[in-house]
Amino acid sequence: MALVNGHEQNYISIADRGLAYGDGLFETIAWTGKYLHLWARHWHRLKEGAQRLQIKLPDEQQVLTQIKTLIAAQNRSQASYQMARVVKLILSRGSGGRGYRLPDSPEPQLIITLHPWPEREDSDYQQGIRVRVCHTMLSAQPVLAGLKHLNRLEQVMAASELTDTCYMEGLMLEFSTADHLQRQTVIEGISSNVFFVREGQLHTPEIRHSGVNGTIRCELLEYAKKRGIQVQTGVYSLQDMMDAEEVFFSNSIFGILPVRQIDYPDYTSHCIPNNIQSVSKYYNQRKLSTLLAQNINQVLQRPCQFNEL
Amino acid sequence: MALVNGHEQNYISIADRGLAYGDGLFETIAWTGKYLHLWARHWHRLKEGAQRLQIKLPDEQQVLTQIKTLIAAQNRSQASYQMARVVKLILSRGSGGRGYRLPDSPEPQLIITLHPWPEREDSDYQQGIRVRVCHTMLSAQPVLAGLKHLNRLEQVMAASELTDTCYMEGLMLEFSTADHLQRQTVIEGISSNVFFVREGQLHTPEIRHSGVNGTIRCELLEYAKKRGIQVQTGVYSLQDMMDAEEVFFSNSIFGILPVRQIDYPDYTSHCIPNNIQSVSKYYNQRKLSTLLAQNINQVLQRPCQFNEL
Repeated sequence: MALVNGHEQNYISIADRGLAYGDGLFETIAWTGKYLHLWARHWHRLKEGAQRLQIKLPDEQQVLTQIKTLIAAQNRSQASYQMARVVKLILSRGSGGRGYRLPDSPEPQLIITLHPWPEREDSDYQQGIRVRVCHTMLSAQPVLAGLKHLNRLEQVMAASELTDTCYMEGLMLEFSTADHLQRQTVIEGISSNVFFVREGQLHTPEIRHSGVNGTIRCELLEYAKKRGIQVQTGVYSLQDMMDAEEVFFSNSIFGILPVRQIDYPDYTSHCIPNNIQSVSKYYNQRKLSTLLAQNINQVLQRPCQFNEL
Repeated sequence: MALVNGHEQNYISIADRGLAYGDGLFETIAWTGKYLHLWARHWHRLKEGAQRLQIKLPDEQQVLTQIKTLIAAQNRSQASYQMARVVKLILSRGSGGRGYRLPDSPEPQLIITLHPWPEREDSDYQQGIRVRVCHTMLSAQPVLAGLKHLNRLEQVMAASELTDTCYMEGLMLEFSTADHLQRQTVIEGISSNVFFVREGQLHTPEIRHSGVNGTIRCELLEYAKKRGIQVQTGVYSLQDMMDAEEVFFSNSIFGILPVRQIDYPDYTSHCIPNNIQSVSKYYNQRKLSTLLAQNINQVLQRPCQFNEL
């Protein structure tokens, strides 16, 4: 079951500009059986995207009501009350004639779908995951940076490189004419943001020319600020990250996942120390990713704008 | 009327990756009432795109049969035999679950639609058009450069800048951190390629990091080679183009359109001499754009793979 503009429907017009040009935005939100997590942050990003792309935003309360309806219907049909789900919203500009110019008064289409919750191994959280540096790089485009828009061919091409199932995520660099891989700028994971700790200092790439401004990324930056943990956002090369004691990814579905090994396209590997010994002096015998993950889990369990069904 | 995989249908699944990620390709082809122009070049680009994106290409003869069916049906229904049309093909990867990874065996969707032929004033061809240098720039992405893929938000954003109807096209530069507009690299028009003549020499930007490898562009390069007209493809700044005697755009629908004036984002203007006096010594009293346009018109009238209906 899916909703398009509040109606049960599983198709859209072939004239939709979401299809023609990727002219729209999306959000993937965690529903963990009780709460819709970080709704305010997801809505904020959708709103900012709609402003920048000049797409009319639907009414927030109506969208929440539609999500609630969809979850309730799914729960009834599957006898799976309180089952975790991924809620996906797509907001497209709607139909328009041929040509890039904006139609005079397009009717935006809001599509809401539910998807199975991707279960992950506990060991991924405890020992960390293996990732691969992708050949496919992100292009620099300040007009679109930060937004979760529908132009995602770069991510599709990068994900197609992860043919080996041992890779749960790929690390993406920004395209430049730099001659050496190590000097390329690190931006994010294919579907996540990236953080690293070096000499006890938490760093994350700035989202200025490319990358998505993740909801958990925002949550982490705010939490760190409150707790007095200094975070630097800046321009970092792959080499900067290779010198780190800890590396971890964040996204709205898996939360925080530490990295234990980074493989290069030429299949040489780099292990992240990622253990208590190497970082103990900084955070009371705890890895920073563990500390942050514990807090983020608390955040994820915090009620949001609509209550228990 | 529209065809999806050969069936009369005007919708696609909301799970289509063309919508979710812009995961697909398109072509816009001129049908001038008798011939489908430069079909071989359009098909060649679609094929190259399908290979690079790893999308299964449908059978060429079947696609041509579907286009023929659609044109014949439209002509019957509108009593407008031999009316010029724009034929648009969209080839999307098809449906796939949530997530960027390629589905195991996706079923590509081929959508064929017909659109009204955009009539243009004779004066546009004779006196040339006014264009504007767009704020929105193209990002450098070698993995996708040359292809006519469905990630077109940059073009949508650039086109949204042309609020003044006097602008028929926008000129797009490649994003870089260069500090001055004049030093940015020129790539193409929003929906066309660009050429310029300087000291009698024909130039066009190389399509290496960004831009679409247009069918008329290919046709022009081949024609010029046959006629012994030297063409340089290279990296050119906006300043290089401003020193030109002639500037013109090319695309599969309007053919070749000369430019008479280029306006900057700050509304200062630059006039292209664009007259016979300035270039007469090079091409027997004829502007190069006129010479090429005459030939391209001949090319456009050449029969292609399917004959008169």
